[in-house]
Amino acid sequence: MYKLTGNAVIGQSGGPTCAINASLAGVIKSLSECDEIGKIYGMRNGIEGFLKEQLIDLSAVFSGDDAEEKLKLLSHTPASALGSCRKKLPKPADDPSFYENLIALFKKYDVRYFFYIGGNDSMDTVAKLSEYTELNDYDIRVIGVPKTIDNDLCGTDHTPGFGSSAKYIATTVQEIIRDCAVYTVPAVTIVEIMGRDAGWLTVSSGLGRLVSGFAPDYIYLPERAFSLDSFLEDVKSALERHPNVVIAVSEGLRDKNGVYVGEGTQSGVADVFGHKYLSGTGKALELFVKEKIGCKVRSVELNISQRCASHVASATDITESFNVGAAAASCAVEGANACMMSIERDDSAEYAVKFVPKDISGIANAVRTVPDEFINEAGNNVTDAALEYILPLIKGEVDLKWKCGLPEIFVFN
Amino acid sequence: MYKLTGNAVIGQSGGPTCAINASLAGVIKSLSECDEIGKIYGMRNGIEGFLKEQLIDLSAVFSGDDAEEKLKLLSHTPASALGSCRKKLPKPADDPSFYENLIALFKKYDVRYFFYIGGNDSMDTVAKLSEYTELNDYDIRVIGVPKTIDNDLCGTDHTPGFGSSAKYIATTVQEIIRDCAVYTVPAVTIVEIMGRDAGWLTVSSGLGRLVSGFAPDYIYLPERAFSLDSFLEDVKSALERHPNVVIAVSEGLRDKNGVYVGEGTQSGVADVFGHKYLSGTGKALELFVKEKIGCKVRSVELNISQRCASHVASATDITESFNVGAAAASCAVEGANACMMSIERDDSAEYAVKFVPKDISGIANAVRTVPDEFINEAGNNVTDAALEYILPLIKGEVDLKWKCGLPEIFVFN
Repeated sequence: MYKLTGNAVIGQSGGPTCAINASLAGVIKSLSECDEIGKIYGMRNGIEGFLKEQLIDLSAVFSGDDAEEKLKLLSHTPASALGSCRKKLPKPADDPSFYENLIALFKKYDVRYFFYIGGNDSMDTVAKLSEYTELNDYDIRVIGVPKTIDNDLCGTDHTPGFGSSAKYIATTVQEIIRDCAVYTVPAVTIVEIMGRDAGWLTVSSGLGRLVSGFAPDYIYLPERAFSLDSFLEDVKSALERHPNVVIAVSEGLRDKNGVYVGEGTQSGVADVFGHKYLSGTGKALELFVKEKIGCKVRSVELNISQRCASHVASATDITESFNVGAAAASCAVEGANACMMSIERDDSAEYAVKFVPKDISGIANAVRTVPDEFINEAGNNVTDAALEYILPLIKGEVDLKWKCGLPEIFVFN
Repeated sequence: MYKLTGNAVIGQSGGPTCAINASLAGVIKSLSECDEIGKIYGMRNGIEGFLKEQLIDLSAVFSGDDAEEKLKLLSHTPASALGSCRKKLPKPADDPSFYENLIALFKKYDVRYFFYIGGNDSMDTVAKLSEYTELNDYDIRVIGVPKTIDNDLCGTDHTPGFGSSAKYIATTVQEIIRDCAVYTVPAVTIVEIMGRDAGWLTVSSGLGRLVSGFAPDYIYLPERAFSLDSFLEDVKSALERHPNVVIAVSEGLRDKNGVYVGEGTQSGVADVFGHKYLSGTGKALELFVKEKIGCKVRSVELNISQRCASHVASATDITESFNVGAAAASCAVEGANACMMSIERDDSAEYAVKFVPKDISGIANAVRTVPDEFINEAGNNVTDAALEYILPLIKGEVDLKWKCGLPEIFVFN
């Protein structure tokens, strides 16, 4: 492959995670060791910031004696340090001027390498941009670096960011189960977990089953049609076994007609102004159990911490996220284009992975859901195989830097 | 003081915390080194379990070569390992048979030392029990060991358990602030924090201000009457300064008439069955901001993790909680009775504490709220003095034992 010299630009897009900055650090580290690369730019707030020429000279920020230390701190910092955006690129035929602007800026800044760290929409950006530049003969290498806590990207064994979220969820659910166990009064606790279309994060609530024995009584995924009747039977049967019932539910639970559980209760939930609103799945089921059984019930929404609890990130995930970024950079310099770096799991007994560029076409705009063999027959729990797939991804604790009792974080000025 | 020999019994009561087991471990450790003590019993589910003679022989559990290791694991385990109860003791005059039963059991098991680890109601138990046994000439030493995440017990500089909850809250709020900062679209995030009558935990959401500079824009405590109008002005003014507004609110916010914010919106919130229900403070304010400003709004309830997130416990808190338990045991053996072990802060520049037994009368049934000098004049934030008081309590990280990516926990069989 011929040598392409010029500058590089890196962006982060979509929802933040605990590991997206580790991938950024990996790309920077690897690029900074390549002769082909001049300056390394970071775009503020993804492609939107790039179009406004809001660029950070990353080569300058990460130079000098403390570069390694800064990259380490960046790797342990939650949320997209460069900022993010949610922008779906237009089709080139619909808005050619959008792409002409981009190319003009690429030329202005001599950008020959474009890295985009993100999920589904970001891979769509990589696909459209690489197609347009190839058709229009602008020589550039466009690479996607996967990122999403939802683990629902196709073409990769798992996604960077997922392991840390899974570790946070498994740790927190185990703590909640212990907390709920202290009283003898019958009580039901419903934990609502992120993942509207794919139940991977909800699966991870069960990891304690393989380790400590503490896992939710039932786990409901969006991959199965949800029935309030079956749910009620499950709760009653759990209450017969022990007083402290804990149940994990995906935010995306839908009935057989595709109606969200929160939506189903919408008819009756209204705010002080008389507006109806969509209550969360957990809250809706809390009210349902309270009505039907009458015991103590509460719902817990794990909420934003699922994607930003860096203080309990998975060392495996952070290391892999760094390495997948570094691999993307070196593959690009070696000639890769129009691809996403994917993670392939070795078939060996010990957990091991390698990083492989995958053609970007067919990756964007598809969702990888939890397969049938990971869900039990009754559709109210997960199989051991599902947990064994996730368990290696949460292994290891990150060596955080603490200051006065709080984790230190990296911030671009 | 004369030597009292016999057995000891330890109970845990009230809501669980991250540190209540460290205090249990401290009592066990200290008692096991005293010649005066025969057996050490643990009561399952507090005084309720004791009355049913549900006892664990702690001397047997924590004997042998691995006793130290087990005590360490216990110290790092969230929630009351012995189980808990919520039982307010009757007045002796109202129900003398209740106390006669207790004394009969004390005699049966030769109990001469009674330790109760808990909050306000538990100190009430200590007060009533010590008064009754003294009046009825049963020779026993009854000692309270403080515990509450709410930090609202009188007679102590702070309460064991508070530091770990404060560390969890400060860490999580800092992560949420970083997460919210990634987009450029104006958005308001409202974080609801525990503490119905005392705002100590909500204060701790601001700790980042002294360390990283990242703290909520506004902090509202239950110690000040809450005004929706002033709140709306605050939110608008914050949105003029920057797009990512984060606000911390106590679950116990009330207006000048004492009406809870969640209660104020109750009129309009009903479930699918038509029942009105009390929405949380955060959710009520979320709907209010959405109506009045119309920008993106969300609310986050930190929920149970505030009292059980042992994975991010404060080493200072866990060590102090262990030591306060150990001090309670040695003070009792030396003759202390009818008291609560309290934490006194030295006036020296470096943070240091000592443990002092305080007469139990006057401690129970009183609440220590956040003082005026810790709240700003406008009543919408906290002073640096408030943060400086809390900061030493969150210092240090616990050396947890991890197994397959999850924290190990101690469980009584």
